Amino acid sequence: MLEKIYQSIESIYPQMVEIRRYLHQYPELSFKEYKTAQYIANFYEELNIPYQTGVGGNGVVATLEGAKPGKTIALRADFDALPIQDEKDVPYKSKIDGVMHACGHDGHTATLLGLAKVMKSYQDKLPGTIVFLHQHAEEYAPGGAKPMIEAGVLENVDAVFGNHLWATTPVGTIETSKGVFMAGADRFEIKIQGQGGHGAYPHETKDAVVIGSQIVTQLQQIVSRRIDPLETAVVTVGVFEAGNAFNIIADTARLVGTVRYLNTDIQEQIIEEIERIISGICTANDCSYTLDYKKGYPPVINHESEATLILDVASKLPEVKQAAEVIPSMGGEDFAYYLQERPGAFFFTGAQKEGNPYPHHHPHFDFDERAMSIAAKTLISAYFAYQEK
Amino acid sequence: MLEKIYQSIESIYPQMVEIRRYLHQYPELSFKEYKTAQYIANFYEELNIPYQTGVGGNGVVATLEGAKPGKTIALRADFDALPIQDEKDVPYKSKIDGVMHACGHDGHTATLLGLAKVMKSYQDKLPGTIVFLHQHAEEYAPGGAKPMIEAGVLENVDAVFGNHLWATTPVGTIETSKGVFMAGADRFEIKIQGQGGHGAYPHETKDAVVIGSQIVTQLQQIVSRRIDPLETAVVTVGVFEAGNAFNIIADTARLVGTVRYLNTDIQEQIIEEIERIISGICTANDCSYTLDYKKGYPPVINHESEATLILDVASKLPEVKQAAEVIPSMGGEDFAYYLQERPGAFFFTGAQKEGNPYPHHHPHFDFDERAMSIAAKTLISAYFAYQEK
Amino acid sequence: MLEKIYQSIESIYPQMVEIRRYLHQYPELSFKEYKTAQYIANFYEELNIPYQTGVGGNGVVATLEGAKPGKTIALRADFDALPIQDEKDVPYKSKIDGVMHACGHDGHTATLLGLAKVMKSYQDKLPGTIVFLHQHAEEYAPGGAKPMIEAGVLENVDAVFGNHLWATTPVGTIETSKGVFMAGADRFEIKIQGQGGHGAYPHETKDAVVIGSQIVTQLQQIVSRRIDPLETAVVTVGVFEAGNAFNIIADTARLVGTVRYLNTDIQEQIIEEIERIISGICTANDCSYTLDYKKGYPPVINHESEATLILDVASKLPEVKQAAEVIPSMGGEDFAYYLQERPGAFFFTGAQKEGNPYPHHHPHFDFDERAMSIAAKTLISAYFAYQEK
Amino acid sequence: MLEKIYQSIESIYPQMVEIRRYLHQYPELSFKEYKTAQYIANFYEELNIPYQTGVGGNGVVATLEGAKPGKTIALRADFDALPIQDEKDVPYKSKIDGVMHACGHDGHTATLLGLAKVMKSYQDKLPGTIVFLHQHAEEYAPGGAKPMIEAGVLENVDAVFGNHLWATTPVGTIETSKGVFMAGADRFEIKIQGQGGHGAYPHETKDAVVIGSQIVTQLQQIVSRRIDPLETAVVTVGVFEAGNAFNIIADTARLVGTVRYLNTDIQEQIIEEIERIISGICTANDCSYTLDYKKGYPPVINHESEATLILDVASKLPEVKQAAEVIPSMGGEDFAYYLQERPGAFFFTGAQKEGNPYPHHHPHFDFDERAMSIAAKTLISAYFAYQEK
Repeated sequence: MLEKIYQSIESIYPQMVEIRRYLHQYPELSFKEYKTAQYIANFYEELNIPYQTGVGGNGVVATLEGAKPGKTIALRADFDALPIQDEKDVPYKSKIDGVMHACGHDGHTATLLGLAKVMKSYQDKLPGTIVFLHQHAEEYAPGGAKPMIEAGVLENVDAVFGNHLWATTPVGTIETSKGVFMAGADRFEIKIQGQGGHGAYPHETKDAVVIGSQIVTQLQQIVSRRIDPLETAVVTVGVFEAGNAFNIIADTARLVGTVRYLNTDIQEQIIEEIERIISGICTANDCSYTLDYKKGYPPVINHESEATLILDVASKLPEVKQAAEVIPSMGGEDFAYYLQERPGAFFFTGAQKEGNPYPHHHPHFDFDERAMSIAAKTLISAYFAYQEK
Repeated sequence: MLEKIYQSIESIYPQMVEIRRYLHQYPELSFKEYKTAQYIANFYEELNIPYQTGVGGNGVVATLEGAKPGKTIALRADFDALPIQDEKDVPYKSKIDGVMHACGHDGHTATLLGLAKVMKSYQDKLPGTIVFLHQHAEEYAPGGAKPMIEAGVLENVDAVFGNHLWATTPVGTIETSKGVFMAGADRFEIKIQGQGGHGAYPHETKDAVVIGSQIVTQLQQIVSRRIDPLETAVVTVGVFEAGNAFNIIADTARLVGTVRYLNTDIQEQIIEEIERIISGICTANDCSYTLDYKKGYPPVINHESEATLILDVASKLPEVKQAAEVIPSMGGEDFAYYLQERPGAFFFTGAQKEGNPYPHHHPHFDFDERAMSIAAKTLISAYFAYQEK
Repeated sequence: MLEKIYQSIESIYPQMVEIRRYLHQYPELSFKEYKTAQYIANFYEELNIPYQTGVGGNGVVATLEGAKPGKTIALRADFDALPIQDEKDVPYKSKIDGVMHACGHDGHTATLLGLAKVMKSYQDKLPGTIVFLHQHAEEYAPGGAKPMIEAGVLENVDAVFGNHLWATTPVGTIETSKGVFMAGADRFEIKIQGQGGHGAYPHETKDAVVIGSQIVTQLQQIVSRRIDPLETAVVTVGVFEAGNAFNIIADTARLVGTVRYLNTDIQEQIIEEIERIISGICTANDCSYTLDYKKGYPPVINHESEATLILDVASKLPEVKQAAEVIPSMGGEDFAYYLQERPGAFFFTGAQKEGNPYPHHHPHFDFDERAMSIAAKTLISAYFAYQEK
Repeated sequence: MLEKIYQSIESIYPQMVEIRRYLHQYPELSFKEYKTAQYIANFYEELNIPYQTGVGGNGVVATLEGAKPGKTIALRADFDALPIQDEKDVPYKSKIDGVMHACGHDGHTATLLGLAKVMKSYQDKLPGTIVFLHQHAEEYAPGGAKPMIEAGVLENVDAVFGNHLWATTPVGTIETSKGVFMAGADRFEIKIQGQGGHGAYPHETKDAVVIGSQIVTQLQQIVSRRIDPLETAVVTVGVFEAGNAFNIIADTARLVGTVRYLNTDIQEQIIEEIERIISGICTANDCSYTLDYKKGYPPVINHESEATLILDVASKLPEVKQAAEVIPSMGGEDFAYYLQERPGAFFFTGAQKEGNPYPHHHPHFDFDERAMSIAAKTLISAYFAYQEK
C-alpha cells in the first residue's frame, strides 16, 4: 500500500505547491493566525474529515480513523509566520507588509494537508488512526503546543512525529538525532530605566542608549567566559529600542532577546549571569531596570527508538540520499512538549533551494518545494512502520 | 512711555497665560506647525497689524510701523514643539499624543503676541518699526531661521533680539553672554548594515545590535580621550533602533544623535573621529555602514554691544534680581543665523517653576509663566534702548 | 607477574612521594629545567639503566631492554613547571620564587622514575623494551615533544602512552577518550603601538591602555557571536601589560593569550577573526599593531584501540572505581605529536586532594599523591597488554 | 642694575647649559634625588651662599641676603625626574636606565643655579633677600612642596615665583594666567581581585584582564557623559598590569591612573563616579576590588597682581615676543601649595626645540636651552619689580 500512497503523494504534489504558495502570500503572526486556521478547517471540511477548531487557541485538529484497528499516531505541522519583511522577488511573495513565512511553516501545513487528502482515499484500508495536528504559534513562546496538549490532543495518541523543512541542507537529506535534537529556547526582555533630558546636557541624565549598549557588550561574556566551553549556549539580543529624537537623551532602553541551551543547568546559569550583569551595569550607572525572563520551549529530546524508526524508513525512500543522525540544532521548537508526553521524534527534511543560500528567518528565505513530498512520504512511512512496532 | 508699557504688559499678562496654555495643549512638530501658524496669523488679523504667512515655510512675520522715525528692530519667537509624551499632570497638558511643548516655545509665542497687542496701542507714539518674527521649526535642523532670512525677513532690520524662557534658572534672572552664548549643534545618523538571521545561529550573521552597541561605547572616547579637555564637546546618540523580534538577529541598526561644540575646529575633529570609529568597528565586524552627518546650527555668537544693552536694560527692571553674563550653554539655536546677518543678542529669561525641577526636553518640563512678562519687558526695553544708540 | 609488579609499586610508593616532594620544592621553568634533567639522569645512572641526556633540548630518555623479545613501548612523563607563585602552606612548598609545579609534572616524573626502579628488578623476565621518555617543556610551545621526536626517540617504538594526574577528578578515576581528547592550543601576542604622552593631555596621544581594553572586550565576541555554538573554542588573554607611571599615557600595550579548539577549521576561523578585530580597533584608533600568532600543540587525538586498551586495563585495577570515556578537555598537550607518529593514548588519572578544590595552574594547586601508584600500575598494565596485542 | 644682570646671565649661560646637560645624564626619581641634591648643595657651598639640605626630604634651600633692605622673595625650581626610558639621540642622553628628565626640571635647576651665581656677584647692591627653593619630588604626590613649606621655607617670604620651561610653545613666549593656571591632579590605584585559573577553563575563573578592560572602557563615560561639558576633567589610566603567562587566566589586575580637574566640585564628582563604576562592574563580574584614591596637588591658582607683574616684566624683555594670559593647563604642580600660603605666580617659559615636536613626559622630550636665560631674566625682573610694589 505504501508504494501506492507514494504515487498518490506525487499526484497531489502540485496542489501542495499551490496551497503552500497561497499561504506564503497571506502569512499571519503567532496567535493571530485566524485566516490560516480557517483555511485549514475549510480544507478538512471539504475532505469530509472530522476536525476541531480553536483547539488551545487557533489550533486545528483533524482525525482520520482507519477502517482497521491499530495505533493512533499524531503528525504535526505548525502554521504561524514571522514579523519579517519579505524581500524575495517571487510571484508568491508575501502580500502582508512586515509579515513573512520565513521559516517554512507554510510548507509544513501544505505537506500535512496534502497528505490528509491522500490518506482520506485510503481510509478504508487504513490500520490505526492518524491525528493531524495543525498547531498555531510555534514561533512565539509560550507557543501553541502546550495549550493544545492541555486541550487533550494527545489523549489517545500512541506516538507523535513532526517534520521541519530545512533550507540549509540539500533536498534528499533527512536528519534527526536519537537524543537532544533541538535547543531549549527562552525569551528575555530587559527594560533600563535611566533618566532622559536634552541631548546637550548628558550630565543631567542617565543615558539609556549608553547603558543599554554596555549591557549588550557585557552579555557577550556569558558565552565567552562564563559557560564551560564544552557546553553549548547562545545569548542573543534581537531588539534594541531606545529614544525617538536625535537631540533628546533616551530615558529608557528596551532589549529583547533569546537564550539557547542544550541542558537545563546551563539555562539556570545563564539566567543568573544575565541578572548579575544587568544589575552590575545599572549599579555602575545609578539606574534601575526590570528583567522579564520567560522560560520558553525546553530542548527537543527525541525518543531513541522513534528517531531510529525515522532514519530507517527515510533511508528506504529513493529520493533520500542521506538519512543521518546529526549534532543538535540550536533552534528551539515547542514540539519538545509533545515529546515530554508521548514517544516520538522530530526530524529535518532537507529543502535547500538552488541559488538561494539564505537561512531561516532571513528576508530572502525560501525552500525547494519538492521537499514537501519527501516529508509527506517520510511521515506516512513512519506511521505505517510504527503500526508494526 | 516705557513705564506705561510695562503696566500694559502687566494688564495683558492673563491673556498671555491663556494663549500659552492653549498652545501648550495643541503642540505641533517642527515643519508641521500649520495650526499654530494659523493661530498666530489670526491674532495679528484681529489686531489689524499687517503680517505675512508662509514665510520661508510656516513662518509668520508681522510689522508694526511706529508713527515716528527710528530703527527697525526684529524680535523673534519660535513656535514648534517636540516629539515627547507630556507626562505632567496639569489642566493644560498636551492633548496631542507624543507631542509636547517641552522647550517653552509656547511661552515665547505668547510673550510676543501679548507684546504685539500692547504695542499696537502705542503705535501712534512709537519711534521706529517692530518686526515680530514668529519662527517655525527651531527644534529640527535645518530649521526655520535660515529660510526665513532667505525670504528676506531681515531686509530692513537694524538689529535682532530673541529670548528663551529658561526653566532651570530662577524667575528674576536674565542671562546672556557677550560672545559665544550657545553651542553649535549637528545631527548625525549612522546606519549599520550587518546580516540578519536566526537568533540561535549567531555565527551565520553579523549582529547589528552588538555592532551598534560597540559603536555607542567607542563614541564615548571622542570626548574622553580625543578632544582637548579644555575644549567643549558633546556627542550624544539619542536613538538606537535595531531588530523587531526577540529570536531574529537584526540585520541593521540605526543610531541617530547630536554633536555640540563651541568652535568649528572641534566640530571638524569630531566629524573625523566619528567616521574613523564607525569605519574601524565595521572593519572589525566585516560589515558596512552609512554615516549621514548634517551640520546644523552654528554657535550662537552674540554681538558684544547688543548683549551689553540687554544686561543694562534688564538690570533696571524691578522684577530682575540678577542680570548676568554666564558661561555658554550647550544647547543649539538657529537664532545663530540672525546674528550672522545683523547685530543682536539672544538671552535667557529665568523661568524656574517652584517644585518642578525638570529640565528642557523632559516629559515633565514646565515653566513659571510670570517669566513671560519679564521677557516682554526686557525685549521692549531693548527695543527702546536701541533706538537711542 | 603483573600482580607482583603492583606489589613492588606499592613498596616503592614512599620513594615516589619523596621524589615528587623534592622536585616540587625545586621547580624549573620550561626550557630551563637543567637541574631537574640532571636529577633524572642521576637516578638512571644509579639504577644502571642506559639513558641519554640533552635529547631535543633538556629531554632525558632511558631504555630498559627486557630479557625476552617483544614490542617497544614508550611511556612519557613531562617535567617542567610554571611561572606561578606557590601559595600553598605545605612543607614541600616551592622554594623558587615565582615558579611552581602547578600542573603535576613533578608527580608524572616521580611516577615514571618509581616505575623504572621497579621494572629494573624485573628486567630478566621482561618481554619487550620500555622507553622512559622524560620530556622537558610541555608548558610552553613549541614544547619539548617535537624536538625529542626529531631527535629520534620514537624510532623503534611501537606505541606510546602518557598519563596526566588530574586534580579535579577523584582518586580512583581513569579518564580518556577514543578520539579527540585534548584541545589544540595556540599562543598569540598582540602589541599595540599607540602614542604616549602626559596623562593630562589625552588628545595629544593614542592611549594604548584604552585601545588594549577595547580589543580585550571585542575579542569576547569571537566565541559569543562568530563561532558556531555547537563548536568549542576559547580565546583567553592571559597578560595585559601597558604603561609604567600613573600620570603618563602608555604608548604601547602588550596582550598575550591562548586559543583552544578541537578542530582546525575553527582554529583558522579564530585566527582570522582575531586579526580582523585588532585591525578594526586600530583603524578606529588610528594606531598600528603587530600580531604574532604561534600555532601551538594540535589537538591530542587518541588512537581508538589504544584508548580502549587503557580503559580495559584500568578497569581491572582494584583501586580504580571508574574507568570511563569522557568528553574532551580544553587543555593542550604536546603529547599530541607522539600520537601523530605512533599508535597510543593519553589518559587522566584522578588525583583530587581532599579539601583542596584548586584547579591546575592555580597558586594553591596540589594533588593526592596516591594517584601516582595508580598511574604507574595503569601504565605498566598497558605495556603488558600491548605486548599481547 | 637689571641691564647688567641680564648681561651677566648671558655670560653665565654656557655654564647653565653645562649644568643642565650634566643633570640630564644623571636623572633621579622623585624622593630619591640624593645625588642631585648633593650636586646643588655643592654648588652653593662653592658660591659661599648659605644653604640648608634635607629640607622636608631632599629639598635644598639657599638664601642670599642683599646688602640693602627689601622684601624676601622665593624663587623655586624642582629637580626630580621621571620613570621614562630616554630615547633621544643626543650626547647628553640619560645614562640611567628607565629614568629621564622628561619634564625639564634639569633646566629649572640649571636656571636657578646660574641665576644664584650671577646674583651672588651683585649681593652688595642687592635690595631684599632671594630665597632659592630647590624642591625635590614634584612629579610624584604628595610631592616635595608641602613638606618644605612645613619645614618653614616660606616663613619670612613675602612672595614666591616659579617657572616651568614649556616645550610645546616657542622660545620667546611667556604664559601665565591671572587665576586658575594649572589643574588639580590626583592619583588612583584600582586592584581587581578576580580568580585565576587555566587559560582553557574560563568558566572556572573570574578573568581579571576582561574585568579590568571593562573598567577602563566604562571610565571613559565619566568625562563623556557625567561631567558637565562646560567643565574640565580628565580621567587617565596610565598603567594596566595583569597576568604573567599566556595560558593562565589572571587573578588580579592593577590599574593606576590620574584625575585632572579645575574645580573641586568636579573632583568630588569624579571620585564618586569612579567608585560607582568599579563597584558596578565588580558586581557584574562577582568579584571584589580595592580603590586607593589619593588626592594630589590642588589646582595652581595664581594671584592676580603677581601674575600681572610677571606679564609686565616679561613683556619688556627683548627676547620675549609674546607675554600673554592663556587658558589653564591640565598639568598639575605642587607649586599650588606655595600659592595657598603666599602671594605669587607660576609661569611657562616657551622652550620649543626646533625639529623636536615631542611633548613633556615623552621618551623623545627635549627643550631649547636658550629658554633658561629667558626664564632667569623673567624671574629676577619679577624680583626687582616686586621690591617696588
